[in-house]
Amino acid sequence: MKPYAERTREELESLKLQLKSEYRDYQSKGLSLNMARGKPCTDQLDLSMGMMDVLSSDVDLTCEDGTDCRNYGVLAGITEARELIGDMMENPAECIIIYGNSSLNVMYDTISRSMTHGVMGNTPWCKLDKVKFLCPVPGYDRHFAITQYFGIEMINVPMTSSGPDMDMVETLVSSDDTIKGIWCVPKYSNPQGISYSDETVRRFARLKPAAKDFRIYWDNAYGVHHLYDWDQDHLIEILAECKRAGNPDLVYKFASTSKISFPGSGLAAIATSPNNMEDIKAQLAIQTIGHDKVNQLRHVRFFKNIHGLVEHMRLHANILRPKFEMVINTLEQELGGLGIGTWTTPKGGYFISFDSLDGCAKQIVAKAKKAGVVMTGAGATYPYGKDPNDSNIRIAPTYPSLEDLHTAIMIFTLCVKMVSIDKLLSVTPENDS
Amino acid sequence: MKPYAERTREELESLKLQLKSEYRDYQSKGLSLNMARGKPCTDQLDLSMGMMDVLSSDVDLTCEDGTDCRNYGVLAGITEARELIGDMMENPAECIIIYGNSSLNVMYDTISRSMTHGVMGNTPWCKLDKVKFLCPVPGYDRHFAITQYFGIEMINVPMTSSGPDMDMVETLVSSDDTIKGIWCVPKYSNPQGISYSDETVRRFARLKPAAKDFRIYWDNAYGVHHLYDWDQDHLIEILAECKRAGNPDLVYKFASTSKISFPGSGLAAIATSPNNMEDIKAQLAIQTIGHDKVNQLRHVRFFKNIHGLVEHMRLHANILRPKFEMVINTLEQELGGLGIGTWTTPKGGYFISFDSLDGCAKQIVAKAKKAGVVMTGAGATYPYGKDPNDSNIRIAPTYPSLEDLHTAIMIFTLCVKMVSIDKLLSVTPENDS
Repeated sequence: MKPYAERTREELESLKLQLKSEYRDYQSKGLSLNMARGKPCTDQLDLSMGMMDVLSSDVDLTCEDGTDCRNYGVLAGITEARELIGDMMENPAECIIIYGNSSLNVMYDTISRSMTHGVMGNTPWCKLDKVKFLCPVPGYDRHFAITQYFGIEMINVPMTSSGPDMDMVETLVSSDDTIKGIWCVPKYSNPQGISYSDETVRRFARLKPAAKDFRIYWDNAYGVHHLYDWDQDHLIEILAECKRAGNPDLVYKFASTSKISFPGSGLAAIATSPNNMEDIKAQLAIQTIGHDKVNQLRHVRFFKNIHGLVEHMRLHANILRPKFEMVINTLEQELGGLGIGTWTTPKGGYFISFDSLDGCAKQIVAKAKKAGVVMTGAGATYPYGKDPNDSNIRIAPTYPSLEDLHTAIMIFTLCVKMVSIDKLLSVTPENDS
Repeated sequence: MKPYAERTREELESLKLQLKSEYRDYQSKGLSLNMARGKPCTDQLDLSMGMMDVLSSDVDLTCEDGTDCRNYGVLAGITEARELIGDMMENPAECIIIYGNSSLNVMYDTISRSMTHGVMGNTPWCKLDKVKFLCPVPGYDRHFAITQYFGIEMINVPMTSSGPDMDMVETLVSSDDTIKGIWCVPKYSNPQGISYSDETVRRFARLKPAAKDFRIYWDNAYGVHHLYDWDQDHLIEILAECKRAGNPDLVYKFASTSKISFPGSGLAAIATSPNNMEDIKAQLAIQTIGHDKVNQLRHVRFFKNIHGLVEHMRLHANILRPKFEMVINTLEQELGGLGIGTWTTPKGGYFISFDSLDGCAKQIVAKAKKAGVVMTGAGATYPYGKDPNDSNIRIAPTYPSLEDLHTAIMIFTLCVKMVSIDKLLSVTPENDS
């Protein structure tokens, strides 16, 4: 395919007319398709229906140490759940606190506690004039929403194919003690599906922060969310690496089963060092008597152990793999060689990241919406919703059926072509505007 | 029975010897009994085992409006759960937000949000030099722990038989704009089991706070927790009364099903005005995508409606009533007329409040512990753990079996007698110390 940039004005004008006609055809269908959020589809939810059967009135709800899961107590979670989630997070059970249903909530509470009470005896952030966070971009909009909500200044750090730009991270973190954290989605990142390289993880573990209360917010949301059986990314385990590097307290690691069992009815957890654990539990004991142990038991009885959970993830992969492959193939088939967009080909996670020509993302998303395809808002992958190049678009292929997804991605590529042509026509020397 | 104060020194000395011998007999038994926390007993937990059967892999987990409860979303809770909890709290479903498993957590988060972001546009409390709360005493230790954790100064307000001393509340709240809240357990209060009179509720609704961001923290923890079918306390509904009084935004009302279904696996909720709802939801949307809807559905399918829930509470009452009555009867039988203690006779809730002679509570609790009976720590019912008279002791009769409870309360009354005699001997003019 000849790149658009090498085509004549006449060729582009003619193509534009043809594309417009295709677009009108789609519009006339009154479609309503959604590729906005990283939401499991119904087939995926059905995989966990067995979880509704493992507990019943005939079943003993006592856990292994004799605790009645139905009553109050057990602040950090029942032992067998800490073991299961520990195996999933690659950390010992003693380093795990099981929370409620949402790791986002755990991250929010972690920031909120740092604001009101500080980190391990340091000044509460609300008493400081300025608090900053590093935000690898593109990234996860809900992370940025939390930091923005607390008035924390966000500094963009570009992502590379091996993780955040570590030269920049090291320079900033070691020189500015108002920088208190960095948001990381280290495996199959949101939205690019990039996994941090061994070097990146090692450099993270060896950071020398100017601020004693600097912490890495390691949101390992997609730790076991592979698309393939063999071709899987592997991450150096960050807590162990930090310990080896003499930086044991540097990381809060987050995870949940939201995209394993049921979103909204799963288990969320934090894994961290003994010092951080002590700091967190002193607060948690004031906030609650304990989280939902019956649901913890339900998860343990359903998955049995980490092998059961991994097998379960293969079933998820069987549903998701065709969707990801179809999107990638369609992008390649429709846009390959045209020079009007690039995209990632992740081996796991929930997203594909698309980069259009600069200044086109907002228009593409708006155009798709007018044809009935809802995408994540352009800009959402950047702090304050401001993509400086207006080029990044997050594609969330998990929720629609394969058929709907195909239609949606065809419409998307059509919109990319139309907006790109407009862009190219407006900047060519022959521009008649 | 002749009051101890009217007995001669010789009579008391002789009685003391006899009691000491009884006490040693109990000590030799190596008992381990617990009357410390308001914890449901196993028989009560068994009442809700049917909740483990209402959802299964054969059952549709879709709620009435078509939402799949297994997936993300629905910030304020599913409609049918808001209706059920609304009926329980005596508020319209639109005024209800369903949270996770713990109303304590909701209260903590409410204070925390006020610290970091303020109440309805007012200055965040963390930016103020001083924030104070009124604390009716005796009260609930976990309330006081939250305010203490956030560095909020607590002011004791004495409880009367009709609720907090409202003259004092009115004077303080209207004159001091650093007073931002008051903790209330308005029905079957913790620990006294007192329900606020109609006049008290009306005066609360008509408060004229100096601080615009003053709120009543109305923890209606025992709203449906009656001991009797007919002899039940009734409370004027506070949100409606505030609305009528032209003070619609004055109250945050909290409740949960922790002592209805399973503690730790129930539903917690807040009920409040539309303005407060908007303020809360703006924060909640940053903190979470939604709470556990499957558990919300489980509760609705199990209780069906408010009548089902009320019938369920009768079963709880059948288990608890004999325990409360036995404790009251034993206190009367062992201590009646002796002039060494007074106690409450609640018609609901989870506690009986005991007041010893001044300066005796700590010693009584310590003595009981040495005979194997764990009580709530003396002082716990006061802010900072400081009971100025050292007289209040909370009795939690729900968890032990009737037999264990009888032994425990016999030991308790024995300890009351022994410590009271020591006290009386030490203050009599013939005091030989």
